Amino acid sequence: MHILLSNDDGYLAQGLIALAEGLQSFAEISVVAPDRNRSAASNSLTLEMPLRAQQMANGFIKVDGTPTDCVHLAITGLLDKEPDMVFAGINHGANLGDDVLYSGTVAAATEGRFLGLPAVAISMVSSDPQNLDTAVKVAGEILQRLLDKPLAKDILLNVNVPDLPWAEIKGFQSTRLGQRHKAEPVIQAKDPRGRIIYWVGPPGAEQDAGPGTDFYAVSQGYVSVTPLQLDLTRYDALDLLKEWLQ
Amino acid sequence: MHILLSNDDGYLAQGLIALAEGLQSFAEISVVAPDRNRSAASNSLTLEMPLRAQQMANGFIKVDGTPTDCVHLAITGLLDKEPDMVFAGINHGANLGDDVLYSGTVAAATEGRFLGLPAVAISMVSSDPQNLDTAVKVAGEILQRLLDKPLAKDILLNVNVPDLPWAEIKGFQSTRLGQRHKAEPVIQAKDPRGRIIYWVGPPGAEQDAGPGTDFYAVSQGYVSVTPLQLDLTRYDALDLLKEWLQ
Amino acid sequence: MHILLSNDDGYLAQGLIALAEGLQSFAEISVVAPDRNRSAASNSLTLEMPLRAQQMANGFIKVDGTPTDCVHLAITGLLDKEPDMVFAGINHGANLGDDVLYSGTVAAATEGRFLGLPAVAISMVSSDPQNLDTAVKVAGEILQRLLDKPLAKDILLNVNVPDLPWAEIKGFQSTRLGQRHKAEPVIQAKDPRGRIIYWVGPPGAEQDAGPGTDFYAVSQGYVSVTPLQLDLTRYDALDLLKEWLQ
Amino acid sequence: MHILLSNDDGYLAQGLIALAEGLQSFAEISVVAPDRNRSAASNSLTLEMPLRAQQMANGFIKVDGTPTDCVHLAITGLLDKEPDMVFAGINHGANLGDDVLYSGTVAAATEGRFLGLPAVAISMVSSDPQNLDTAVKVAGEILQRLLDKPLAKDILLNVNVPDLPWAEIKGFQSTRLGQRHKAEPVIQAKDPRGRIIYWVGPPGAEQDAGPGTDFYAVSQGYVSVTPLQLDLTRYDALDLLKEWLQ
Repeated sequence: MHILLSNDDGYLAQGLIALAEGLQSFAEISVVAPDRNRSAASNSLTLEMPLRAQQMANGFIKVDGTPTDCVHLAITGLLDKEPDMVFAGINHGANLGDDVLYSGTVAAATEGRFLGLPAVAISMVSSDPQNLDTAVKVAGEILQRLLDKPLAKDILLNVNVPDLPWAEIKGFQSTRLGQRHKAEPVIQAKDPRGRIIYWVGPPGAEQDAGPGTDFYAVSQGYVSVTPLQLDLTRYDALDLLKEWLQ
Repeated sequence: MHILLSNDDGYLAQGLIALAEGLQSFAEISVVAPDRNRSAASNSLTLEMPLRAQQMANGFIKVDGTPTDCVHLAITGLLDKEPDMVFAGINHGANLGDDVLYSGTVAAATEGRFLGLPAVAISMVSSDPQNLDTAVKVAGEILQRLLDKPLAKDILLNVNVPDLPWAEIKGFQSTRLGQRHKAEPVIQAKDPRGRIIYWVGPPGAEQDAGPGTDFYAVSQGYVSVTPLQLDLTRYDALDLLKEWLQ
Repeated sequence: MHILLSNDDGYLAQGLIALAEGLQSFAEISVVAPDRNRSAASNSLTLEMPLRAQQMANGFIKVDGTPTDCVHLAITGLLDKEPDMVFAGINHGANLGDDVLYSGTVAAATEGRFLGLPAVAISMVSSDPQNLDTAVKVAGEILQRLLDKPLAKDILLNVNVPDLPWAEIKGFQSTRLGQRHKAEPVIQAKDPRGRIIYWVGPPGAEQDAGPGTDFYAVSQGYVSVTPLQLDLTRYDALDLLKEWLQ
Repeated sequence: MHILLSNDDGYLAQGLIALAEGLQSFAEISVVAPDRNRSAASNSLTLEMPLRAQQMANGFIKVDGTPTDCVHLAITGLLDKEPDMVFAGINHGANLGDDVLYSGTVAAATEGRFLGLPAVAISMVSSDPQNLDTAVKVAGEILQRLLDKPLAKDILLNVNVPDLPWAEIKGFQSTRLGQRHKAEPVIQAKDPRGRIIYWVGPPGAEQDAGPGTDFYAVSQGYVSVTPLQLDLTRYDALDLLKEWLQ
């Protein structure tokens, strides 16, 4: 068993280091991760420029690209041996509801779909996590289950872990993505030279966050596990659209 | 009716200019687009740095960010008046099957989902399109239909137009996304200083490209129209996953 | 006579366009300029990544690099025919005193030193110049003199033009670089997520700005022309240093 | 005595780490360095975007900017206590002759000129140095001399160290900058998508490299020490230019 690890916080992130240490007793681990923070990179892929990869003293390979670049390179030739699975994380910060659209962590896992094997994105629901070991234990539990009872080959799991000691975690829940309100307005400011700049505002508050959603599960102390689509077709609209187009 | 236009080829792209000209008889048009080529930017959002917007002589606003940044800014405060709809494109190059995951054009339309109104991504199936006016006519047709027979408020359409004269287009088809084979291997090379660099390889050949797919429709001379999911939850796996987690 | 034009404000800048129009009656003009604003790029050269060049409708070639990259490419192979001289500008904003160290405009001219022919950097002493035609006339005057009475082959001139109508310009002065006070302190701020960011502060006020300096000349309504060193050796310290090292 | 260290190879470079260790017995050391390789950044300064600084476990502060940004921030407010001197390096690779124009290492030292105290750039004449400890010893020697016999307050020294064991170093020489031939032609290539790209070619061979130059000194096994100008005015051309302008 050979597991590829990546993230979007960069190869120096504590969450990634903790994950690599935690999973090395289960499998051979290769780490290919961005050389710096690439949060919110989504599935962006670097086509216009070449990438450079460098192996660091601890064996991690850093790449001057996005999370998707890292996993893409790793599974299309950078690594001598193709990995059997992809784990992305442990992200410092939640990836809940609409967040998954932008998340570089989820994107790293998504790029693993080429493998036709399970890929798992793991995030701590705190941007300054105090209980990384809880997420490491969660990762180990999920990996063990995947080894014992394999899931469909193309499954992609989005896992969010409350920032609590393991003993306070109430269990695992299968959830759907909730939804946020529209993002907060863009923040207009001036640079020191008096010219206008814009900062993307904070994400919207939770809108659809009731029982069954990922938002709800983590708020109640559960690990949220959401299965994600790889096929973005909206099948239930195909017939309607067919009629509409005539 | 106020339509926001964006793209991922940049504000100077012929496809964008043609689209703006083509739709201006239907509605008020605002263009907010990247200041340079941002193909394959996916839904990446710039959180770490501020953005700058500048209105050009032709009224277009260029932003030094991703397609998602452009639409996000436009609908969260940059424009005085909120748009009613988003059109992204006309992209120089197809966005079929797995491509939509990486596409900045599709991402620009996706970001329009905040509006709760239809968003449309339009691409020419050629990176050097000879029949942009065909795609302009397609855009006009779709817009006219949306005005006449509104669709569900949160629909996102991914439209691909064969690079053919309008007279040779056989019609419109409602399609699902096809699928590509695994991408070609990463291309290893050396820079002039002798150090190894990697280029992301070409996308894989079409794998699932039979009747019903977007690949098939455009190959047969049809405009392909695919409805896309905004909710990435894989609902049919929720129960299985629930059991698996116990 | 074939003159290469470049700048650091980008290929769309009014100053560059005005300069190209102004000099085309004197010589064949090639423009190779950055695809976007690259102010304060100094002599930075892109070694790690490849560059892309694209010819625009007006004949200008834009490059996704620094001013130095642009001139370097132009005179080492991008242009079929080697230029005989380099003009950089017209910069929107002064390049006086310590500014020349950081200036991309001066750097573009400096890179022209490979030609062993005069290179000229021209700047308007206003970031929103109202009298670009004055600087165009200055450029023409200097070019005419260079043609009539050639200077030493490796001369580099840094020209600053007051933002005044031509009739109000009092003449040309040969000047030395003045000096600024230490830059204003770094400006500490917070991004919208509460994290600390730093903006480089404004340049210091003029310190050494008396008669003879470039600061003084422009303040008096003169065009300032400063000859610059290509050889950075501090010759008058060589003997002292020799002794000190023993 | 408080010494600021920076470089252009990034905060993880062995040369910087060795220098910090080597000088810590002489003085209090603060390290502010780029978060990644910024070779050939010259004196470029980031004015359009804010910078972020982060203190690492070893006390080094990394900044997402150029070498000049790093030193500028450090001496205009980032550090609580203003440094008394700047050492830049140890660069992995020579900075000889024309190289100094582009060098980020030399630029880091140059930015120290605001201090009005000696600033020193140190480079190993090998891009993969085997004898970093030789350069560390050189740095210590120079620092000791500066403490014992202070030089003029605004002196800037450019030091190049042959990649030899200390015992094989023949001594220190006060040198002038040599000069290279024109750079090799730009290298035209194609990216995997068939589009033309350009790589900046290698620097030219040594042209002016005889006795007295920095090229010559290092080729003979000496440490080359070149005093650099801060004032780029070409004084010996002022009178000629005055006449020429009339």
